[in-house]
Amino acid sequence: MSKRPVTVIDIAHAAGVSKSTVSLVLRNSTLVNETTRAKVNETIRELGYVYNRNAAKLRGGGSEVIGIVVNDLTNSFFAELAVGMDMVTQSAGFVQFLANTGESLDRQREVIASMREHGMAGLILSPARGTTAADLKPLVAAGIPVVVVVRAVPGAKVSTLISDSEGGTREAVAHLLEQGHRRIAFLGGFADTAVFAERVRGYRAALESAGIAVSDGWIFDSAPSRAGGITAATAALAHADHFTAAICFNDAVAFGACDGLRAHKREPGLDFAVIGFDDVIEAKSAVPALSTVSIDPQGMGRRAAQMLLKQINAGQAEAETIISAARLVLRDSSGGRIATPKEAAA
Amino acid sequence: MSKRPVTVIDIAHAAGVSKSTVSLVLRNSTLVNETTRAKVNETIRELGYVYNRNAAKLRGGGSEVIGIVVNDLTNSFFAELAVGMDMVTQSAGFVQFLANTGESLDRQREVIASMREHGMAGLILSPARGTTAADLKPLVAAGIPVVVVVRAVPGAKVSTLISDSEGGTREAVAHLLEQGHRRIAFLGGFADTAVFAERVRGYRAALESAGIAVSDGWIFDSAPSRAGGITAATAALAHADHFTAAICFNDAVAFGACDGLRAHKREPGLDFAVIGFDDVIEAKSAVPALSTVSIDPQGMGRRAAQMLLKQINAGQAEAETIISAARLVLRDSSGGRIATPKEAAA
Repeated sequence: MSKRPVTVIDIAHAAGVSKSTVSLVLRNSTLVNETTRAKVNETIRELGYVYNRNAAKLRGGGSEVIGIVVNDLTNSFFAELAVGMDMVTQSAGFVQFLANTGESLDRQREVIASMREHGMAGLILSPARGTTAADLKPLVAAGIPVVVVVRAVPGAKVSTLISDSEGGTREAVAHLLEQGHRRIAFLGGFADTAVFAERVRGYRAALESAGIAVSDGWIFDSAPSRAGGITAATAALAHADHFTAAICFNDAVAFGACDGLRAHKREPGLDFAVIGFDDVIEAKSAVPALSTVSIDPQGMGRRAAQMLLKQINAGQAEAETIISAARLVLRDSSGGRIATPKEAAA
Repeated sequence: MSKRPVTVIDIAHAAGVSKSTVSLVLRNSTLVNETTRAKVNETIRELGYVYNRNAAKLRGGGSEVIGIVVNDLTNSFFAELAVGMDMVTQSAGFVQFLANTGESLDRQREVIASMREHGMAGLILSPARGTTAADLKPLVAAGIPVVVVVRAVPGAKVSTLISDSEGGTREAVAHLLEQGHRRIAFLGGFADTAVFAERVRGYRAALESAGIAVSDGWIFDSAPSRAGGITAATAALAHADHFTAAICFNDAVAFGACDGLRAHKREPGLDFAVIGFDDVIEAKSAVPALSTVSIDPQGMGRRAAQMLLKQINAGQAEAETIISAARLVLRDSSGGRIATPKEAAA
C-alpha cells in the first residue's frame, strides 16, 4: 500500500460500489441495503480508512448538495414540494439548495451550471416552459442523477415524476357532470405546456363521454396564478354560455377564480362550483374549502427525493418514470345548486 | 514581473481595492463607482490581465453564489422576499441559492456551513427563532458579508434590514380606534420573538394612548401561519370581551383569521375588522381585499440584496441597520360597522 491516505474513492474501487454509496454508508444512511453496507464497512476496515467529517470539509470535499430548481416559487405548490424534498434529503445527510427560474430558460441554464460547478450530488428539476431533452443532455452525459418533476421533458433520459393530469381532471369533471352541471369551463394554465394539454384532454374526455361537445371557447388559458384565475373567471363569466361550474388548472387559479366570482356577486360553492388541482395546504382552510384533485405536493416532493437518492445510491442514472395517482378531494367549493340558464344570465 | 499569470488578487492589490470589486468591474457591474472602475481598468491594462469567464470557471473559481437562508418557505412572504432579492443579485451576475430552515437552528447552522464550503460571496439571512450573535460570529470573523432581514439579531455585527413593526402596528390600531373600535384583539405570532414584542408594543401604545387598558388576555399568540390565524381567531371569538376588530401578526395570520371568522358566521370587513402585516401579493386580490401594514416584501428583498452587494463591493463587512418604513394600506377587510357588545355577543 502506498503511504498516501486512503480515500473514499479507494474504498469505492475496492468494494466495487460508487463513491456516493461509500459516502452514504459513512453517514449511516438507511438508503444503503444491508449487504452493500456490510461489504463497504468490511472494505473500510481492511484499508484502514478513518472517516473525519471535519477533515473531509477541510480537504474541500464539502457537504453534499442536492439542487432543486423550480419554475415558480411564488406558487405555494412549489414551496410545499421543496419542503417535502427537504424532509427526505435532510435525513439522508444532504443539504438542499433551491433556485427559482421564474420560467426563464436562460436562468435555468445559469443556475444548473452554477450548481454543477459547486459539485451537486443530484438535481431535481421542475423545468421552465420550453425545456427540451437537449437542455438536460450534458447532465446525463456527466452522470449526474436527475429527477424531473411536475412537467415531463419528452425524450430526456432522466427519471420523471409526474401526476395523472388527464385522469385527475377527467374524474373531477365527471363529478361536476354527476351533480347536474352541463356548462363547465376550463380555467387557467399556459396553453403551450404539456400539463395543460393533458388536463384539457381529461376535461374534454369527460364532457364528450356525457355527450357534450366542447367548444374551444370554453377553455380560458391564463397564467397559472391567482391573478390568472381572476382574469380567466372574469372572461368565463362574460361568456354567452353561462357556465355553472369550472375545473381549474391548479389551486392558485381556483383561488383566483373564487375571488373573480365573488367580485361578480357569484358565491363559489353556492351558485357556482369550482374545483382546483394540486391540494396545497391552503385548500383545506380556505373559505369555501377548495375541492381539488389532490396530488399531495409534500408527498410528491418526498417521492421525488427518494427517486433521486435511489439513483445517487445506485451510482448510475437509471431513468424511471412514475405517474403518481391523482385523487379527487371534495370539499365545499364544488357544492351548490345548478342555476338555470336564465338565472345564470341574470 | 514573474511569469505566472496575473490574477484578480494581483489587480486588487495593485489597485488597492478588494478582489470582489475587481470581479464586479470585470462583469461590468453598475455597482462600482466610476472612479474605482477607471482605476481598476487602468490596473488591468497595466498588468496585462486577460479575463476569461470560462477559464475562471475551469480554474474552479465558479460562478459567485449568494446564499439566501429563510425560516419559513411555506409563508409566501419569504418566497416574495427571495424573488425580490433574485432580481437584484441576478442583474449583478450572481446566482442565488436558497435554503429553508423551518425555524431549526441546527438546520440553519448546517446550511450556512454548506454554503460557506461552497464559497458564497455573501449571505442574506432571515434568522430562525433563537439565533444569537454567536451564531453569526464565525461569518463576521471570516469577512463574509451578511445581511440579516426581518428579524434582527441583537449584538451581531452584521447589516440588518427590518421593518418598523412598532410604528406600523400602532398606525393600524390607531385607524381601528378612529373607526370606533374599542375591543381590538392582537392575533398570532410566536410570543418569544423580538418582532412579536415590537408589534405588541405598537398595539399597546395605540390602545393606551386612547385610554384603553390592554389585558394580556387580548393577545392571542399562535404560529405565524394561516392555520395559526384560524386558531387565534377562534380563541378570540370565545373571549368574554367580544372583540369587534383584530390586528394580526402578519398577512398569513390575517387570512386564517378571516377563515376562522367565517367559520363562526362573522364576515370580515362587514361585522369584524381585520388588518394584517406584510402586504403579500395575495392581500390585494383576496376577498375581502386585506387591509394591511405594507412593508413591500419584494421591495424589501431588493433592498436587502442591494445592501449585500454594497458590502461585497466595498470588500469589507461594514454593518449598517436600516429600519424600513411600514405603510398602512386600507382595503376592504378593515371596513364594516361596529357591533354593540350585545350584538357581538349574539
